[in-house]
Amino acid sequence: MKIALDAMGGDNAPLSNIQGAFEAINAMDVEVILLGDENIIKKHLEKENIDTPKITIKHCEEMISNDEKPVKAVRTKKNSSLVVGLNLLKNKEVDAFVSAGSTGAILAGGLFVLGRIKGIDRPALTGVYPNESGGSVLLDIGANADCKPKNLDQFALMGSIYASSILNISNPKVGLINIGAEEEKGSDLYKSSFELMKNNAEYNFVGNIEARDIPKGTVDVMVCDGFTGNIILKLTEGVASTIFGLIKKTIMSSLKSKIGGIMLKNSFGELKKSLDSDEYGGAPLLGVNGIVIKAHGSSEGKAIKNAIKQAKTFYDSKSIEKIISYAEKNNKVSEEKSI
Amino acid sequence: MKIALDAMGGDNAPLSNIQGAFEAINAMDVEVILLGDENIIKKHLEKENIDTPKITIKHCEEMISNDEKPVKAVRTKKNSSLVVGLNLLKNKEVDAFVSAGSTGAILAGGLFVLGRIKGIDRPALTGVYPNESGGSVLLDIGANADCKPKNLDQFALMGSIYASSILNISNPKVGLINIGAEEEKGSDLYKSSFELMKNNAEYNFVGNIEARDIPKGTVDVMVCDGFTGNIILKLTEGVASTIFGLIKKTIMSSLKSKIGGIMLKNSFGELKKSLDSDEYGGAPLLGVNGIVIKAHGSSEGKAIKNAIKQAKTFYDSKSIEKIISYAEKNNKVSEEKSI
Repeated sequence: MKIALDAMGGDNAPLSNIQGAFEAINAMDVEVILLGDENIIKKHLEKENIDTPKITIKHCEEMISNDEKPVKAVRTKKNSSLVVGLNLLKNKEVDAFVSAGSTGAILAGGLFVLGRIKGIDRPALTGVYPNESGGSVLLDIGANADCKPKNLDQFALMGSIYASSILNISNPKVGLINIGAEEEKGSDLYKSSFELMKNNAEYNFVGNIEARDIPKGTVDVMVCDGFTGNIILKLTEGVASTIFGLIKKTIMSSLKSKIGGIMLKNSFGELKKSLDSDEYGGAPLLGVNGIVIKAHGSSEGKAIKNAIKQAKTFYDSKSIEKIISYAEKNNKVSEEKSI
Repeated sequence: MKIALDAMGGDNAPLSNIQGAFEAINAMDVEVILLGDENIIKKHLEKENIDTPKITIKHCEEMISNDEKPVKAVRTKKNSSLVVGLNLLKNKEVDAFVSAGSTGAILAGGLFVLGRIKGIDRPALTGVYPNESGGSVLLDIGANADCKPKNLDQFALMGSIYASSILNISNPKVGLINIGAEEEKGSDLYKSSFELMKNNAEYNFVGNIEARDIPKGTVDVMVCDGFTGNIILKLTEGVASTIFGLIKKTIMSSLKSKIGGIMLKNSFGELKKSLDSDEYGGAPLLGVNGIVIKAHGSSEGKAIKNAIKQAKTFYDSKSIEKIISYAEKNNKVSEEKSI
């Protein structure tokens, strides 16, 4: 399969993208097109001694930065690596698009260039929340700060398909993130969403899930609005890094604890690795007509490679086709109900 | 000062409440009235060898459980420990009310029995989020799942008064929890709240704060709606307990790491203590006409003592009077603006 990679996106671009592309073509059967400034990319390829027909360059004169207004940037910068990449995907010249660039621009570009799948009102950025059971699907993690109940219902449907096709979980348990376990808990949005979700037979809804249970992996798919999902992901990052910082400080506080720390070093390394977001690849934008993976802005080569791997699994699993067929069915049911 | 304590509230009632009351009268200049079933309370007092004029009992025939509908329970159970306690406070027979009982019932009771402070549309449950700088004020943590911008503006005002009066922070920095640092980020509620908050001269608004910075203590007061605040508190609890669980597992995984763990035991004990919510007392319900402290449902004696200590600091600082005067001023400004 062919993947278009936004070489200019992310904090460590283009080096991390080039390294990630190289790791990917060595690890799996993919070809990568690097989108961006040809001169800069060529220099890096030479420096890294990378010369393979599996990595090609498509020169793009422009790039979209994180500071730009997403909608305006996507509309005016037709020659940016982002817009060029999405157009390649739209025209079926590639099978997926991967970028560590501006989230807002990727969302706007996904909508304008690729368009929504029929029956999906709002696409959702979809993450994997790390936990001991290997991770749960969490969506929306930031595409839609304001949501309606039908959006959350559609997120649940897409998340369920993603969990079963990509993570190989059969009949995934879908939970609604809420401030209490009981049906009547939550804001108006969450109360109405619960109502819709419990009556949807297309996925396995198991009820509300409280925030303290999120890291336990009690459900396979966790549904919420994009504001809440973004808070959840970033807070988890913040709490984990604060605790590890405090542990380091604690270990350095006395000779005895320093020795204890040295004896634990390897085990702690393993623990940190299991919580490392780089291991989990990127976040697919579910609900648009094509495979779009948003990699973390701070991605190193390994994270880019994993995002490419994710695009490949996504492609191989034919998840888009499944979402299209389920969304159509779901849409028909809602139309019938509203008549 | 006199404190009414709901002896029947919480998972460990009445023992934890009785122990907490006893610890409190020994540690500070307070009298405690225990509200609840006289026979049961007396038996516990005898068993614990507690006999002091500083602890008295007021018999209440009823109690409100966590499973009851809050509004209905408060309206029908006039002889419950909760409603009796709030009435004592309303009639100035006590100076504060403390309970580890049903959050919903405490909120409903606070509103019905005590009423709102003029100029405050919605009271807020106010927590202290533990961090290295000693904790930041976080509100609302669960009183209002649905909020309007003016609610968040008023939360900021009350939180700022609380931080300066109770935590002794001069000119506290107030941040709005959001999904990005820039002004235009967030849901409609957060964008409109930002607009109101940046134009309010009654407190020191410093802008948005992203979730990953919440544990760092970069601001003194963190403002959000009650749905988000509840998610933040519970997720932090969940992530911390998951990480400590994984660390324990890691330590037990080999002989070498077990020895390392033993050498770190004391230091880890200190670290866990600094993150222990029992150290921080309870959550005041700011915005009602009286001092109401909600202690954690799982409170042990120490947490109840700290909630009583918090009620005393609250009382001594005359924070209610300050909120009344600022709310009046704030209200006048809004009225003038809307003319």
